[in-house]
Amino acid sequence: MRKIAIGQAGGPTAVINASLVGFLDKISDKAQVYGIMNGYNGLVENDIKLLEGSLLEWVKKNKNVPGACLGSGRYRFTKNKIAKAVQNLKKQDIHSLVFIGGNGTMAALQQVGLEAKSIGYDLQVIGIPKTVDNDLGGTDHAPGFASAARYVALTTRDISKDLEAMRNFEQVRIIETMGRNAGWLAAASGALKNSEQDGPHLIYLPEVPFEIEQFLTDVKETVDKFGMATIVVSEGVSPVGASQVEKTNVIGRAVLGGISNKLEHLVQTELGLTARAEILGMTQRSSSLSISVQDREEAYAVGQKAGECVLEDKSGIMVSIKLIDETKYLYNVGTCSLDRVVKSGERLFPSKFIDNRQLYYNWLNPLIGTDIDPYPQGLKLTEKEITG
Amino acid sequence: MRKIAIGQAGGPTAVINASLVGFLDKISDKAQVYGIMNGYNGLVENDIKLLEGSLLEWVKKNKNVPGACLGSGRYRFTKNKIAKAVQNLKKQDIHSLVFIGGNGTMAALQQVGLEAKSIGYDLQVIGIPKTVDNDLGGTDHAPGFASAARYVALTTRDISKDLEAMRNFEQVRIIETMGRNAGWLAAASGALKNSEQDGPHLIYLPEVPFEIEQFLTDVKETVDKFGMATIVVSEGVSPVGASQVEKTNVIGRAVLGGISNKLEHLVQTELGLTARAEILGMTQRSSSLSISVQDREEAYAVGQKAGECVLEDKSGIMVSIKLIDETKYLYNVGTCSLDRVVKSGERLFPSKFIDNRQLYYNWLNPLIGTDIDPYPQGLKLTEKEITG
Repeated sequence: MRKIAIGQAGGPTAVINASLVGFLDKISDKAQVYGIMNGYNGLVENDIKLLEGSLLEWVKKNKNVPGACLGSGRYRFTKNKIAKAVQNLKKQDIHSLVFIGGNGTMAALQQVGLEAKSIGYDLQVIGIPKTVDNDLGGTDHAPGFASAARYVALTTRDISKDLEAMRNFEQVRIIETMGRNAGWLAAASGALKNSEQDGPHLIYLPEVPFEIEQFLTDVKETVDKFGMATIVVSEGVSPVGASQVEKTNVIGRAVLGGISNKLEHLVQTELGLTARAEILGMTQRSSSLSISVQDREEAYAVGQKAGECVLEDKSGIMVSIKLIDETKYLYNVGTCSLDRVVKSGERLFPSKFIDNRQLYYNWLNPLIGTDIDPYPQGLKLTEKEITG
Repeated sequence: MRKIAIGQAGGPTAVINASLVGFLDKISDKAQVYGIMNGYNGLVENDIKLLEGSLLEWVKKNKNVPGACLGSGRYRFTKNKIAKAVQNLKKQDIHSLVFIGGNGTMAALQQVGLEAKSIGYDLQVIGIPKTVDNDLGGTDHAPGFASAARYVALTTRDISKDLEAMRNFEQVRIIETMGRNAGWLAAASGALKNSEQDGPHLIYLPEVPFEIEQFLTDVKETVDKFGMATIVVSEGVSPVGASQVEKTNVIGRAVLGGISNKLEHLVQTELGLTARAEILGMTQRSSSLSISVQDREEAYAVGQKAGECVLEDKSGIMVSIKLIDETKYLYNVGTCSLDRVVKSGERLFPSKFIDNRQLYYNWLNPLIGTDIDPYPQGLKLTEKEITG
């Protein structure tokens, strides 16, 4: 019976376990599937477990649970560790390796495939896309993103309604989203905006140069006009000439985060307005409340497709989602080469969407779900408030 | 026709508009109801609007929208301003004043009532309870709290699952909740915990002395045991001998917040573990995703009851929720005197719940909703992880 190892890597999402379960549902009765614990760390340390019996049942029960039920994590691969990973697979006669992850995961998977080839070990490598940042190439979008985008859009709308009620006490909220160097998530914050006076009023993306003077002018104008400003800033934004804001952990690895605190300080000291930074944090990638049904279905479907690809002896590929109709949301699940994914690097928020935000929302709305109640439009009340 | 003014004050909630609409549904065809804009600020500035026609329709459409559709805010009442508020009501021949709010709102309402009495102006004053902190006396609990508690419980569960997957990268998350000086919300974070190894592992409440040495020992022991620690801390917690962590806004008013950042720093420097502060922020009080159906129904019911009280010429009271059966959740809506509410001050998290957390969750669960899917219990996978 064919032996396959599958792992989850990088930051978890609200639907990554659906991909794992999709894979298992397709293949667990046709092969021996081993779960790799804690991402590439488990592959190198040979911490893998046969998924059968009560363990398999338990994993399947995790389909709708956020996080990554095999354990994920971030891991620094080295040449030696890659060699060790391949040796571990060889010792156990495992000839298929599947990883669910983003850019780093796909690059690592490609390296493992090349190492196996270089020692003449027959190893099938298949990637399953996953990232809330949506910065992965070779696919129209990656599972995990839509649920995070849904959270960002709904939360921005709610926080803005809260601020609207509190204008005599505070005027500015600066909501910080994930996204690394790509603005997909931050831009999603405006998906439910109905009118000019609704938040978010200002959105700042890493792809667009950020000038502090212009920012302060924008904020002042917005507060003059609406009595408030709901601002969204991507964690990857850096003022022109400055570096991105990040924090280094105890083992010396840096993570992005904190630009909203800097801007809060600027708004308070330069404009004399009360501002509050709101870092959406880990909830945006893990909220079980905000899961998009479409996202979960697609996460499951890419997992199933990876199972098919294993059985069809494909290798050096990543499963990919292709939109086949832009007017009415239809997609199919295909594949693209790992080479292409790795070569394309970080997929930034495209200029066509920067130039035409509505075009972006037309594309995004079917992904985040059309079951979201519209807020009522502001009537006389808000108009009076604005002029008052 | 009777003329009534109603306002919303203090921090908004996800269900405060349901109370307003409950009130209007009961009374808007029997009286002229004026909406006071932006809380007590609007009462003093005489910014009030007759709620009729399209404006009334618009307000009613806001029933399920977070924030406070009349505008709320924090406001410093003075003797002069109270006198001005009463004069404004007198000029317009409004003899009924209703406010939806928490402790500060009820104290202000009582003051307005006393001022009217002192000048011989007949003024009916009625309070409708609202606070996510649940620190309001005279009622079993206040609308707004249950939805916030639901958000805190679900989000802590999700963030903890995310951390569980990331243990090779970071070990400690410190989730900071609202609550002011009361631990109701922070304690709610454990409502969905299934087993010892699930988060939250440690919860710190303002009512219990907080010793830094003990905290560090607790964190170290938890990480040794589970490879991670999900910690919840109320914004009102202060280390023994130190003051609460707060931030002063540009007009000199302080708000609590930031203890999680201090603890993050401590854990990193003293224990050498990677820690991340997660401030739940404004989302916990405004999330439309986490609204508890029970909470919204009760918010609507207390609004309706206030309408009845107006028609019955009651005054000097606050609507109040009383549990009438502890074994199966049944409540009725009555009233209590404003005097009693004001005298009882901040209602802290009681020692019976500190001593017996399960007792608290038995009380809380019907409020936050029993429609929450249980996460699967950890099986072999997690056991191995713990010992590994």
